[in-house]
Amino acid sequence: MNCDRLRINLGHVIRDSRHALGYSQEGFAHIVGLHRTYVGAVERGERNVSLTNLARIAKALSTPLSSLLRAAEEEAGEDTAACA
Amino acid sequence: MNCDRLRINLGHVIRDSRHALGYSQEGFAHIVGLHRTYVGAVERGERNVSLTNLARIAKALSTPLSSLLRAAEEEAGEDTAACA
Repeated sequence: MNCDRLRINLGHVIRDSRHALGYSQEGFAHIVGLHRTYVGAVERGERNVSLTNLARIAKALSTPLSSLLRAAEEEAGEDTAACA
Repeated sequence: MNCDRLRINLGHVIRDSRHALGYSQEGFAHIVGLHRTYVGAVERGERNVSLTNLARIAKALSTPLSSLLRAAEEEAGEDTAACA
């Protein structure tokens, strides 16, 4: 899995988790304390998110960050350790 | 767990994993493609690392990034989803 793929998969996982909790993108962004357009870009895999912002997103989703990342690694069904 | 704690724990996990593989900080930095001083700062929890650089570090450690983060979350034995 290259880095783009991991970013994109993680964006999917975040979006799906947000939907499962019934949050709009705007409402979720407010909870996380980030701008809606930034959250949208993260969900589309367009931003190289920092550890701190990832942890804030995970907290708002009430999910350990490691679980979000594991789901992103598994989404592709590829070598999870690889990042070109 | 606040974000500082997660960063510090993850730094410990990365340093310990690097030691377990017998890499010097300089040799490891060369493999990851980052500067030695940057890797040192990451290991001390001083840098808010991006997802891409975390994935590159995980690849060099032949470990899924989710596993490194789970170890960091577990190191404190606290609520793993929290980040103030």
